[in-house]
Amino acid sequence: MSAHPSVAGLITRPVRIGLLGCGIVGEGTLQLLRDNRESLARRLGTTFEVRRVVARDRIKPRTDALQEGQLSFDARDVLDDPEIDVVVELMGGLDPAGRYVREALERGKSVVTANKFLLAEQGHELFELAEARGVDLYFEAAVCGGVPVIRVLREALVSDTVVSLRGIVNGTSNYILSRMAEERVGYDVALKGAQAAGYAEADPSLDVNGGDASHKLAILSTLAFGARVRTEQIAREGIEAISAVDVRFAERFGFTIKLIATGRVLPGGALDLRVHPTMIKRTSVLASIGGALNAVILEGERLGPCMLSGYGAGAMPTAMSVVSDLVDVGRNMLAGSRGRVPQRSMRSELLTDREVRSPGELVGPYYLRFSVLDRPDILARVAGVLGAFEISVSEMVQDGRAPGSNEPVQLVMITHPCRDSSVRSALREIDRLSGIARPTSAIRIDETA
Amino acid sequence: MSAHPSVAGLITRPVRIGLLGCGIVGEGTLQLLRDNRESLARRLGTTFEVRRVVARDRIKPRTDALQEGQLSFDARDVLDDPEIDVVVELMGGLDPAGRYVREALERGKSVVTANKFLLAEQGHELFELAEARGVDLYFEAAVCGGVPVIRVLREALVSDTVVSLRGIVNGTSNYILSRMAEERVGYDVALKGAQAAGYAEADPSLDVNGGDASHKLAILSTLAFGARVRTEQIAREGIEAISAVDVRFAERFGFTIKLIATGRVLPGGALDLRVHPTMIKRTSVLASIGGALNAVILEGERLGPCMLSGYGAGAMPTAMSVVSDLVDVGRNMLAGSRGRVPQRSMRSELLTDREVRSPGELVGPYYLRFSVLDRPDILARVAGVLGAFEISVSEMVQDGRAPGSNEPVQLVMITHPCRDSSVRSALREIDRLSGIARPTSAIRIDETA
Repeated sequence: MSAHPSVAGLITRPVRIGLLGCGIVGEGTLQLLRDNRESLARRLGTTFEVRRVVARDRIKPRTDALQEGQLSFDARDVLDDPEIDVVVELMGGLDPAGRYVREALERGKSVVTANKFLLAEQGHELFELAEARGVDLYFEAAVCGGVPVIRVLREALVSDTVVSLRGIVNGTSNYILSRMAEERVGYDVALKGAQAAGYAEADPSLDVNGGDASHKLAILSTLAFGARVRTEQIAREGIEAISAVDVRFAERFGFTIKLIATGRVLPGGALDLRVHPTMIKRTSVLASIGGALNAVILEGERLGPCMLSGYGAGAMPTAMSVVSDLVDVGRNMLAGSRGRVPQRSMRSELLTDREVRSPGELVGPYYLRFSVLDRPDILARVAGVLGAFEISVSEMVQDGRAPGSNEPVQLVMITHPCRDSSVRSALREIDRLSGIARPTSAIRIDETA
Repeated sequence: MSAHPSVAGLITRPVRIGLLGCGIVGEGTLQLLRDNRESLARRLGTTFEVRRVVARDRIKPRTDALQEGQLSFDARDVLDDPEIDVVVELMGGLDPAGRYVREALERGKSVVTANKFLLAEQGHELFELAEARGVDLYFEAAVCGGVPVIRVLREALVSDTVVSLRGIVNGTSNYILSRMAEERVGYDVALKGAQAAGYAEADPSLDVNGGDASHKLAILSTLAFGARVRTEQIAREGIEAISAVDVRFAERFGFTIKLIATGRVLPGGALDLRVHPTMIKRTSVLASIGGALNAVILEGERLGPCMLSGYGAGAMPTAMSVVSDLVDVGRNMLAGSRGRVPQRSMRSELLTDREVRSPGELVGPYYLRFSVLDRPDILARVAGVLGAFEISVSEMVQDGRAPGSNEPVQLVMITHPCRDSSVRSALREIDRLSGIARPTSAIRIDETA
């Protein structure tokens, strides 16, 4: 019994892969399949064979893990090849990626994808299609890169009922907020830093406006709650309006600001789904998740809270999830158990349409920062509006300013729990007052996070 | 398409279970199988049928989830029943549990167990036996209760090489250390509190002396490194000697004391395996893991660090892992893919015997607390011994004491990185000096944790 049995000794045929997309995750996948060829063969029981890699850019230099004859510029070379068992879709976007995935499933090929946008938009029908064809559709890499949250939801929590999930699922915005807190810089400087470090795209909109986090939350909630969640049902606010002043005040009150994605089952069964900047206690576990890390806390009825964290993006963590999915799909092929884990919701429930509660009905404490001109009556007028909406204040501080300065004064209040819609209505009135210099900053506080 | 397809509509036969052991985890398992009967049937594709529950105590009142006719006091009723597909072993201990597990595997039954002691001692041969018989041996509940670390190692990290793992894997000792830090009480008071809260046994030895953590580390290292790790190869220190004074000094230097289990691959391939109290930075993620929680940070070559945390013990979190394993084993049965994930190391490597490096060769900073009688020459003599062993000091504080008190003075030093064996030798000499009142407290500092 040798420690390293020869790969050549295996008798089953290779698992044949067609790769659609050859960006950084695609190249990482090719490198990982090459570098860990032997250990993968031992663990799978056979080898992987990459038959085709379909790229778009004809000029770009390619990784040396790409072999002679693999490169193609036509997706038909993958879709029409009857010998390809598994299609790995790493193109991103809805079209043509969605058409290709659908066609692959229809033709009886299993699919591994990292395309969160596609799954958030068309996941429900793709899962049904995979189930109908008896093939596998795996997508660990689509949510939180290398963090195995899909696997844990689908398998480890299969015996439990998930009641909530909460987490930091966008690394770019977390990197920006972490820099703002650690280096006491403003949003724009932190964003530039993220771009320079390769953590933010030239157009960072989807990362900083909560769009990317909403896609991930839609997929996670679909799995966790067996519900047909659509991205547009998720209430969403980004981090663009968070200022250095807010970060400093948060610290003063013992909080850290994070972009938190929340999905919860409310009493009665409706869902609460939202992505927004949140003040959480500095001593909480999520507050310790810095830089580009991701973290998700799943709460099971029986299990209680269970947290997973790690790198949610980057070529190698993401490629690792893609290749681990390939091993799972390959094991199913070899064991003749494709579709072994039912696909429809990956938790084998028929998806149900569930009421999604508007965040306006939420009740909780708020951080409010008013930029006021130093007029003697402004505090009374602000307090008057808050009182009219039954918003009561538990703590208040006012920033001193240099004498003679014309800058507005920063007046910060922490409210007692109050209705979200009342806060919004009150702020609309307050921001019209003549003593208010800038739109009021309002950030939800979650002391349970 | 109805939201809740009737369980009766399923055509496959039930998965038949025999349960050995009916303590709190066994009762939790029966309750979970009953309470989630419908969702489990939907997710598995068939029902579970508990045919026999073997208990020891004939008098104890039992959960109402135990049905008429299930209870037995003879393990033969499970082992000799050819209709039982899966044996769930929740008895604990080496014998007779080990014999029963072996017999079940030999007779072609799959096994789900929560018995970490058995796996740490005999796991290697049991995995080989399961593999030889083509059946499943699952054990998520054996390590960290509800935290799915086995699944993540076995599946999510299958494409990567694990280079280290580090974590808090004993909830009892973590609860005691957390209470000591939060409530500023001594070890004995904190231990009594843990016993009162049901977190510690009447005899807490295995929890507080690092024995339980060593069993878990042996299992995790076997899987992570594909190595034949035995518990006695793990260097082990418990928390019994940690005092309130140490906890207070740790805080002063920005540290928290945790019982950390570490497994690492050293350059050259040897393993570093140990369980001991460790001072880690107060801002680190592991420092935020309080109470009875567990947490494990797995580090993959490609993935980087990935943390999992949650309740590592308790009836329901542990029962949840047992039942999720049952679903996995059941899916394999239904799909005809038993043994789908090779068993030997669960990561499908042939286990190798690897050198385990003695912790004496480790180099790192230390916290040293000397209890000295207030003699003018003692500092020079202590410093002289440290110098002779090339141990240099980076920080030093001395606690003031009430004038006229006869209590020894607490002299605390943080060293620069030094050899573990040098520290041990130096302390043996120092503790013989006449001005030293009590054995010196020495705790490793890990600034990377």
